[in-house]
Amino acid sequence: MSMLSQQVQTYLESSSWIRRMFEAGREMKAKYGEDQVYDFSLGNPDLPPPAAVTKGLQRLAEQAQSSYAFGYMPNAGYPDVRQALAQRLSREQQVALSEQELLLSCGAAGGLNVLFRAILEPGDEVVCPAPFFVEYTFYVQNHGGVLRTVPSREPDFALDIEGIEAALSEKTRIVLINSPNNPTGRVYSASELRQLAAVLDAASRKYGRPILLVSDEPYRFLTFDGTQVPPVLPAYQHSVVVSSFSKNLSLAGERVGYLALNPEMPGKEELMDGLVLTNRILGFVNAPALGQRLVGYCLEASVDLEVYEKRRAAMVEALDAGGYTYAVPQGAFYFFVQAPGGDDVAFVQTLQEERVLAVPGSGFGFPGYFRLSFCVPETVIRNGAASLARARQRWQ
Amino acid sequence: MSMLSQQVQTYLESSSWIRRMFEAGREMKAKYGEDQVYDFSLGNPDLPPPAAVTKGLQRLAEQAQSSYAFGYMPNAGYPDVRQALAQRLSREQQVALSEQELLLSCGAAGGLNVLFRAILEPGDEVVCPAPFFVEYTFYVQNHGGVLRTVPSREPDFALDIEGIEAALSEKTRIVLINSPNNPTGRVYSASELRQLAAVLDAASRKYGRPILLVSDEPYRFLTFDGTQVPPVLPAYQHSVVVSSFSKNLSLAGERVGYLALNPEMPGKEELMDGLVLTNRILGFVNAPALGQRLVGYCLEASVDLEVYEKRRAAMVEALDAGGYTYAVPQGAFYFFVQAPGGDDVAFVQTLQEERVLAVPGSGFGFPGYFRLSFCVPETVIRNGAASLARARQRWQ
Repeated sequence: MSMLSQQVQTYLESSSWIRRMFEAGREMKAKYGEDQVYDFSLGNPDLPPPAAVTKGLQRLAEQAQSSYAFGYMPNAGYPDVRQALAQRLSREQQVALSEQELLLSCGAAGGLNVLFRAILEPGDEVVCPAPFFVEYTFYVQNHGGVLRTVPSREPDFALDIEGIEAALSEKTRIVLINSPNNPTGRVYSASELRQLAAVLDAASRKYGRPILLVSDEPYRFLTFDGTQVPPVLPAYQHSVVVSSFSKNLSLAGERVGYLALNPEMPGKEELMDGLVLTNRILGFVNAPALGQRLVGYCLEASVDLEVYEKRRAAMVEALDAGGYTYAVPQGAFYFFVQAPGGDDVAFVQTLQEERVLAVPGSGFGFPGYFRLSFCVPETVIRNGAASLARARQRWQ
Repeated sequence: MSMLSQQVQTYLESSSWIRRMFEAGREMKAKYGEDQVYDFSLGNPDLPPPAAVTKGLQRLAEQAQSSYAFGYMPNAGYPDVRQALAQRLSREQQVALSEQELLLSCGAAGGLNVLFRAILEPGDEVVCPAPFFVEYTFYVQNHGGVLRTVPSREPDFALDIEGIEAALSEKTRIVLINSPNNPTGRVYSASELRQLAAVLDAASRKYGRPILLVSDEPYRFLTFDGTQVPPVLPAYQHSVVVSSFSKNLSLAGERVGYLALNPEMPGKEELMDGLVLTNRILGFVNAPALGQRLVGYCLEASVDLEVYEKRRAAMVEALDAGGYTYAVPQGAFYFFVQAPGGDDVAFVQTLQEERVLAVPGSGFGFPGYFRLSFCVPETVIRNGAASLARARQRWQ
């Protein structure tokens, strides 16, 4: 008899096809050689961390021999790191943030779990545009909530404001957006945010309690063609930004992120008290001490963005040569491409036969498309172009 | 209207008295000076990390400039670190552990949450001897479970095996012990573990599914007078060890711990698959990369245990001089002392008036006692002895 809960057993069963895909990719690499398989399936930053990370680790080594060097700290994180981050975010978000509105979290994933744990009652709903980062489903269900998704507008994945409005109910506690979006690369415009805020204001009044707007922004650092990511905090009073340093500092394994509350939000103190508590009781206790310190030293650092620009250009070339239909991503490191023939799972299978690894849109709640990550060396993209084209031809 | 869930609001309200105590302590320190207040309330390791941590950080600095240096990794943790840890644990637990049975977690707290998320259905019970680490209540309730506590035997806090047996039911999924125990310092003997295992075996058969025995052992490194912590894995097939490196390496803020499954447990592969999944979806994703690497470099290192021995001896002297009744702790860095008069909250108030900070036993589900941490410089203990004695005299 299984020791796992029914729900977790079901999760394991339904994730088995992803595992099969992953295993198939690994077998292909073993058979044909690493460089003969074009793996566009993962969003795992391959650039080395910026030099500031090395210097930061040296500084940490120098500080190690003291009491409480990396001991317990306030559950919200080191006050000085939060203060420095508040300054940076005040510029980014165009509001006056202080460390009081900041909680350092175990990545954005930890931040979202802490937030959902603090807010959701069983059956409460989180509304989210599709396609969406598939882990959101789990983060919401972990805390008894329900993720309600609203398809975005094709072909450019703009928010369907009317669709979101129609999805709101007395059960809605949170609307969750992700900009730049994984998997589409879409950046929501200031005008979209304004319209969304108006809808949320009206619904909050209608149902007699605030609906929170949560913006998940780990790709904010990575936009193209001069695209700006408009700040969400000035657009809506009950707003929260969640983000991480996984991608911009190539520190994904160290798990440092944050939650930032709108300083204009009524009741923000109580909400922060709740977040500090749930950060503690969910077992995070605090964001990792070494990572917090490192991030504090590296707030102005970043991996080399030009590398990503070149990769995006290479992918545009490859997709155009193959005759694919897609929206050029404004940010992040993904293309969300129409599946020739319309069946994304079938087409991803064809790609795999041509030694190209991709993720079907169904995995993001949006069938008919597939995701290609360009977080891979440019040569992989260039060398994979012919395979991409062959797969397309097979579905003419 | 509050944005928090009812449950989290209730948590905040009920934790307010702890906060008041903490605030009172802070005010006292501000008023009388840090060294005129004897703060025995916290279990925050004050010893600097061992020198190996400094060397480890230097090594990490040397490795930083490479792809995936601190990037994503398997959700269970770096395979080589798990392998090295498995070797150490094989010795400690006297079983042949491999990395397949190990998951690196975000501290023991993260490990317990991952385990409870994987196993508990709403209403399922976790049985635990009292006094117990108060956070257990939250960890269980986070995942819809119920913590059912069984008072230990006085005066030495031995397990009440019959009491535990009586508490088991078809709802029991887990029995959770903590050895060396916080707050009592008790180490459960091999004979206690054998008796407990027999009871759990019988109950597992009776109810037709395995009851897991989980041993939380972050203080295993710290025992006195030659006390050995008997290994739990050889004692019972369905057993799990959870622990952390917070105390033995003074790395509490970096959040590295682990779950180790009994290699003889039927169904361990599926359980591990579930744990890897819940580690991911709860937002931990993986234990912090820097901490994992560091711990891998420091598996044979430890803070200086002699320091704790001297502190324990100083506390014995102080308590004896004051005329207190207590069991000498076999491990960990706490004394659990009888409250003169029997009312622990009232007595802790008296202690506070004498500028001694302690935690009432009620906070650990065991009124009538109070906890003193000796994780403080020896001088604090020696200087606080007179205050301890005065408080005792007031309740003669």
